[in-house]
Amino acid sequence: MISPDLEVNHMDIVIYLFDGITALDAIGPYEVLTRLPGARVRFVGPERGTARTDNGALALVCDAGRDEIERADILLMPGGFGTRRLEHDAGLLEWVQRIDRTTSTTMSVCTGAMVLAAAGLLEGREATTHWVSLERLSEYGAIPRAQRVVTSGKYLTAAGVSAGIDMALEFAARTAGAELAMSVQLGIEYDPAPPFDCGSVQKAPPEIVESIRARFREHS
Amino acid sequence: MISPDLEVNHMDIVIYLFDGITALDAIGPYEVLTRLPGARVRFVGPERGTARTDNGALALVCDAGRDEIERADILLMPGGFGTRRLEHDAGLLEWVQRIDRTTSTTMSVCTGAMVLAAAGLLEGREATTHWVSLERLSEYGAIPRAQRVVTSGKYLTAAGVSAGIDMALEFAARTAGAELAMSVQLGIEYDPAPPFDCGSVQKAPPEIVESIRARFREHS
Repeated sequence: MISPDLEVNHMDIVIYLFDGITALDAIGPYEVLTRLPGARVRFVGPERGTARTDNGALALVCDAGRDEIERADILLMPGGFGTRRLEHDAGLLEWVQRIDRTTSTTMSVCTGAMVLAAAGLLEGREATTHWVSLERLSEYGAIPRAQRVVTSGKYLTAAGVSAGIDMALEFAARTAGAELAMSVQLGIEYDPAPPFDCGSVQKAPPEIVESIRARFREHS
Repeated sequence: MISPDLEVNHMDIVIYLFDGITALDAIGPYEVLTRLPGARVRFVGPERGTARTDNGALALVCDAGRDEIERADILLMPGGFGTRRLEHDAGLLEWVQRIDRTTSTTMSVCTGAMVLAAAGLLEGREATTHWVSLERLSEYGAIPRAQRVVTSGKYLTAAGVSAGIDMALEFAARTAGAELAMSVQLGIEYDPAPPFDCGSVQKAPPEIVESIRARFREHS
């Protein structure tokens, strides 16, 4: 690897899957985290089986059920319309609390932050989530921040969907060094060139912002 | 939706899955394409079952085997180390040729371009792929271009891994209009903020470029 004298310990990464997930929330950061030295990624669901995206188009395999998992170095909670249900899933929230007590980093993408918040992990902490849901973070005592990535102690929260890639690269730089993170960034050829400069609510035309808010309300 | 007077026809999108895939190659563009008006996405493999990523960490479900698929409006071929094998898979290449005859757009991400090229679809055409494999495109008569997205007739090819998101957004703008594409971009909050400016081979330090070339050679 890049730094042959870097001490490589195993880093157990648990990514939670559930019905109603937005796939890119999980797969974006996964594609970065799996390239870290010593990374051992497990995709974990309510039980072994599959988790299907909110639109039904894609199923991801849960290689383990959550009851099989006792600990993790990193816990990643992705988002999607399905998190609305998870906010009230007592069994899941208890599991998240238990695993969080073993992690060095607990992270979320998009509305995955609402699950961490519902588990009480973000109380009094700055955090972010998909812009449509941002203000709801305060219902759980978190302090909403309109940033792409927010760090608060061992908690990393990313904004909507694609923001998990940036979060994971920041994490890679912090834990494995800039050189390793740059290598991962080049490996996944992450030199983004979006066709429009409208990827945040601050930049997009108001009528487009409103149309998305309306569509999300249908799912609430 | 954004444009109520836009005529919505079904758009059948087939994304091919295989063992040794890089997940983000498929999931990045999927997350955009599935939001297009009329989109019906199917994840298709050699047969029904699962396809596992090259590192073994993630399995994606193939909801259909390729023999069940007769046509597609859009065919998307992702990349990954597994494409080396696919370049010599006569049954797959024949299927790709057959489906391609029915598509309005055939696209690839990363080394998925090598599969389209091996099927003879890129002969005499400009195309791109992951930078490590770029020159190999010419072995199949394609004209390598070090660009993030290349359009040649109905063929769209994207550079490595993350470039599929940009390709899909460009495609969205072209086929469904700028307003729709902007809405999708804001929906997935794609306002990228990579921590380093090293995501292309033109921008990255030479020693990092060389370390990745060395790692890819191990897989060749």
